[in-house]
Amino acid sequence: MNLSIIGAGAVGSAVAELASSYGHTVTALADSRSAVVDTAGVDVQSVIERKRDTGIVGDDPSAAALHAQYECLVEVTPVTLGDAEPGVRHVFTALEQDCHVVLGNKGPVAQRYRDVRERAAASEGEVSFESVVSGPLPILSTINDVGRERIHGVRGVFNGLANFLLSRMAAEGIGYEHVLAEAQDLGFAEVDPSYDVEGTDTALTCSILANVLSPKDQEFTIEDVSIEGITEIPGSALDLAKEDGRTVRLLGEVRDEQLRVAPRTLPDNSSLAVTGTQTVVELDIQDAGQVSVTRTAPTSTELATALLAEVNRLEDP
Amino acid sequence: MNLSIIGAGAVGSAVAELASSYGHTVTALADSRSAVVDTAGVDVQSVIERKRDTGIVGDDPSAAALHAQYECLVEVTPVTLGDAEPGVRHVFTALEQDCHVVLGNKGPVAQRYRDVRERAAASEGEVSFESVVSGPLPILSTINDVGRERIHGVRGVFNGLANFLLSRMAAEGIGYEHVLAEAQDLGFAEVDPSYDVEGTDTALTCSILANVLSPKDQEFTIEDVSIEGITEIPGSALDLAKEDGRTVRLLGEVRDEQLRVAPRTLPDNSSLAVTGTQTVVELDIQDAGQVSVTRTAPTSTELATALLAEVNRLEDP
Repeated sequence: MNLSIIGAGAVGSAVAELASSYGHTVTALADSRSAVVDTAGVDVQSVIERKRDTGIVGDDPSAAALHAQYECLVEVTPVTLGDAEPGVRHVFTALEQDCHVVLGNKGPVAQRYRDVRERAAASEGEVSFESVVSGPLPILSTINDVGRERIHGVRGVFNGLANFLLSRMAAEGIGYEHVLAEAQDLGFAEVDPSYDVEGTDTALTCSILANVLSPKDQEFTIEDVSIEGITEIPGSALDLAKEDGRTVRLLGEVRDEQLRVAPRTLPDNSSLAVTGTQTVVELDIQDAGQVSVTRTAPTSTELATALLAEVNRLEDP
Repeated sequence: MNLSIIGAGAVGSAVAELASSYGHTVTALADSRSAVVDTAGVDVQSVIERKRDTGIVGDDPSAAALHAQYECLVEVTPVTLGDAEPGVRHVFTALEQDCHVVLGNKGPVAQRYRDVRERAAASEGEVSFESVVSGPLPILSTINDVGRERIHGVRGVFNGLANFLLSRMAAEGIGYEHVLAEAQDLGFAEVDPSYDVEGTDTALTCSILANVLSPKDQEFTIEDVSIEGITEIPGSALDLAKEDGRTVRLLGEVRDEQLRVAPRTLPDNSSLAVTGTQTVVELDIQDAGQVSVTRTAPTSTELATALLAEVNRLEDP
């Protein structure tokens, strides 16, 4: 398929670089300042070098990438809360042209699910967002195949950085501030890690799952999630858990239209007690028991690979 | 879709009972002795009661179910090794009528993959066998979406009974014979558990995975698997592993066209070190890291649910 990629950070660049090995052509690539468009296929390497050297992707305005010739828009701009703009506008523009959208940005489906669904229903294009929930394994289409009314609940560890920090705290018996400084030194954590450690990212995933599961097509946003992060957990709480053969994880849970993010204790051998930067999503399926997908929190390249596998799942619109 | 179900044991009966709640109609049901066929829909409850009371499913010969009106054959007869008959003949007959086949029987794709593939290529019907590998989550279609050339290897704990026995041996420090007797008393293990504990079942899963992954369309069977089961593991080996923070699991592995089933030691916190009757399948994906699916070994009802979700994934032929 011809791809237009909106967002030219680490993930967008990786999608552009790997696209041809998946049989796709990049016909447009944009960041928030400019775009390059070429119906014959963008010269990805030279564009990435130009952006690195000059900060500029191309000579066209950003919006040109939204109106280029493509079958699938890969939307990988940074998450925004509130009205999830400009991501939602990008999604709508692609759908109006009967193009598919694959999201690497959780905002549009976490914050404005109903709007996105209504626009998708009126379009030949589909909006796909498996990769932001479970990577290359399609949890959301499994929910669809099984029937959402048979999913009793979903829970898991959705954020790899928060899990890395908690694992380190438990293993070393040291406090949050100390392991955060260590992770920042190693380049694992941003200078401002609040999006990960205060539960915002986990809450966005909860909102997406609740939207997909809702039998009444009720709309959920992050406002509907009860959120508690990991910054207030004392090292002593982890020690106490350890003495009981238990451990603490930042769990996201969706059940009976209740959405919750909070540190919870789990048995050491629970399939939810993933270690290091691993994440896990567990479905509780009526008559099929519990099924979970575990993976390492993706690097930019890994998320790009999952997004391209997701493009491969879509039929030509 | 209209379903014909071949095999009327616990799984076949559960598929028949749950089919209508997935929007399907059972137009035929057979065991090895007889069949019932009704284009308007079989009265499932009365057939199951008749089989329970008299041992007879219906008044037609078994083969009538293969030639009934249906869009999808659900093949849930017992696994056979060697030429995997009569399973293979069932698959061929459905494909000749341009019908789909969903397999609950590993034999045809573990032992005669090339024949099955060739017949499927000449048919409008598809042969689907996700559930016998990973339950409701579609590992095999993920391999297809990502591209099999990008899968560096697959490994996992594929047999729940073997894992239950090993977990008990490690936790209690007792030998194989003792935990087996316990499992037999609890009804978890058959009187003859050799299919599970000697590695045969795990080897069949390896063969299926190797067939799906083979870039040269080389054919694998259980003859190509190096197999070592769990019956010879002394309790002392588990104790030694425990002292090192490790544990033993019966792993199946497929990598570089090498197929192997053997007990292996793993770190206690490995995502492969699943406990109790859990199983896990882990894909090693180029540029996407390791992704695994963990679930509890399915009961008959749980396998039936996965098979019906699999039917839902197929388009009308």
